[in-house]
Amino acid sequence: MKLLPLALAAVFAAIMPLAAQPARAPALSPNEIVAAASPGDWTAIATDDLLVMTLAPDRDGNRRQVTIQLMPPPFSQGWVGNIRKLAAAHWWDGLAITRVQDNYVVQWGDPDAEDKAKAKTLPAGLRVMGDEEYTTKGLGMALPMDAVEIDRDPYAETTFLESGWPVASIKESGWPVHCYGMVGVGRGYSPDAGSGAELYTVIGHAPRHLDRNIALVGRVVEGIEHLSSLPRGTGPLSFYEKPEQRVPIVSIRLASELPEAEQPRFEYLSTESDSFARYADARANRRDPFFIAPAGGADICNIPVPVRRIAAK
Amino acid sequence: MKLLPLALAAVFAAIMPLAAQPARAPALSPNEIVAAASPGDWTAIATDDLLVMTLAPDRDGNRRQVTIQLMPPPFSQGWVGNIRKLAAAHWWDGLAITRVQDNYVVQWGDPDAEDKAKAKTLPAGLRVMGDEEYTTKGLGMALPMDAVEIDRDPYAETTFLESGWPVASIKESGWPVHCYGMVGVGRGYSPDAGSGAELYTVIGHAPRHLDRNIALVGRVVEGIEHLSSLPRGTGPLSFYEKPEQRVPIVSIRLASELPEAEQPRFEYLSTESDSFARYADARANRRDPFFIAPAGGADICNIPVPVRRIAAK
Repeated sequence: MKLLPLALAAVFAAIMPLAAQPARAPALSPNEIVAAASPGDWTAIATDDLLVMTLAPDRDGNRRQVTIQLMPPPFSQGWVGNIRKLAAAHWWDGLAITRVQDNYVVQWGDPDAEDKAKAKTLPAGLRVMGDEEYTTKGLGMALPMDAVEIDRDPYAETTFLESGWPVASIKESGWPVHCYGMVGVGRGYSPDAGSGAELYTVIGHAPRHLDRNIALVGRVVEGIEHLSSLPRGTGPLSFYEKPEQRVPIVSIRLASELPEAEQPRFEYLSTESDSFARYADARANRRDPFFIAPAGGADICNIPVPVRRIAAK
Repeated sequence: MKLLPLALAAVFAAIMPLAAQPARAPALSPNEIVAAASPGDWTAIATDDLLVMTLAPDRDGNRRQVTIQLMPPPFSQGWVGNIRKLAAAHWWDGLAITRVQDNYVVQWGDPDAEDKAKAKTLPAGLRVMGDEEYTTKGLGMALPMDAVEIDRDPYAETTFLESGWPVASIKESGWPVHCYGMVGVGRGYSPDAGSGAELYTVIGHAPRHLDRNIALVGRVVEGIEHLSSLPRGTGPLSFYEKPEQRVPIVSIRLASELPEAEQPRFEYLSTESDSFARYADARANRRDPFFIAPAGGADICNIPVPVRRIAAK
């Protein structure tokens, strides 16, 4: 991904209003840049890479569905494979959201996982992963880092992969980053690296200290408000204290397993596109009318990759 | 504030277990360091600097109270003065939470503020502030920046003021930063810089692009879950579409105006203390047993200043 060097960005800012709008039109906001992107700048997400979690309706009877995009290679594929098996086995059906910690995570899985007598049996053939797989070596992480917007990350070097995912790297090693909405694999103490049966998503400020310490396997692309607005747990680590506080999971399915008319379809703004480069630049340097002092930078989690729903086939 | 240089931090890590615990005890987590801090490391927050917002009970009849610490000089004191006047006039009583945007903000004030015929009259004597007051010059921002943990911020230089607040600076200018839980002043287009009657708090990843573009006037020190777990609005900018969706504000009071027995009391871990330095270092370099790869850094919003409630007088 090549973010625009600032000089080029300035050219865009100068040219675009003349080409597309009356002279002296205000600069576009990041959302306006995304809305104006051409259809060719968007890339479809395969339904085989989408996980649809249906929760029990809320107390007013409203439907609650959360859609997660699974992470592509080269990261976390052992866990992603396990998650595909767990979904195919309908393993999560009837389990629950068990933990909601403010400014941190929402977690779901088997409430009885710690109790050998009551824990739900996992499907056969799950892979056992090691923590060395939290990072990927030899990724060719000499990725373009010419964007002043994200070149002062406190944790590592950061950029976007061609596949549209935010990543960090140090030297030869690369890993996905814990931004809002990212989905990861709960685990106990090392060397337990988790199977993928216990999952969580981030609902607060990016807990980047979890990078390289937990496997990230995807991101929520729709419906995160059904998780982030849940009542916070009051037990240790903000687990729900009483079983009736847990939110029942009706089902988790790969979208490709649903009847075709029910398969949600999404696309993301290609991180290789000029539109994305302009969007990222505008996130770092807001010139739309509300703003007085453009920031002159942005951290990678403050440049969320735009994803939108498209009509069903 | 002096964060420990890393070499000194390593000495602490080596010495502390020997002094305080059996040899080979695991390194303390950030929370354990805070719990072990001596009473002298904590600084009381004056009740005159606390704002208590009481919301209508939730639908199960549970009490909902949010406590906000107002920002001390040198920042935003014009708006803070207005907020003290608004609270003294009981101006917010009967108004409402009007907007909840996922991964962004919760906002409250007068739902009819935009309608001159219906807008609630503001108390006399509010100051009109200019946007030049979003930053403070000549702050002596040659503050110690010797912590590798926070010396690679994508937006500016960052550190903690002696008063216990996270700040950023560029050259001679300094300003408070938009971390989770910070409270700011809603406004329209510049030069309207807002009166302080419309307030919001951050409930997602730090929107640092708002720094220097909006006045920050405080931070939530208790009860943010009553805001962050509210249903998200579905109107433009995530305002609630229907009046009945809004959450009524029963009252907002300076804590010092409440009967003494009802005054909440809080203290924060002095950012000048060695305990805070160890805590910040541990946030950036987790050595407690769960962690495999210490991050080697942290952004300032990932080092929240510890605040705790203490017994009433």
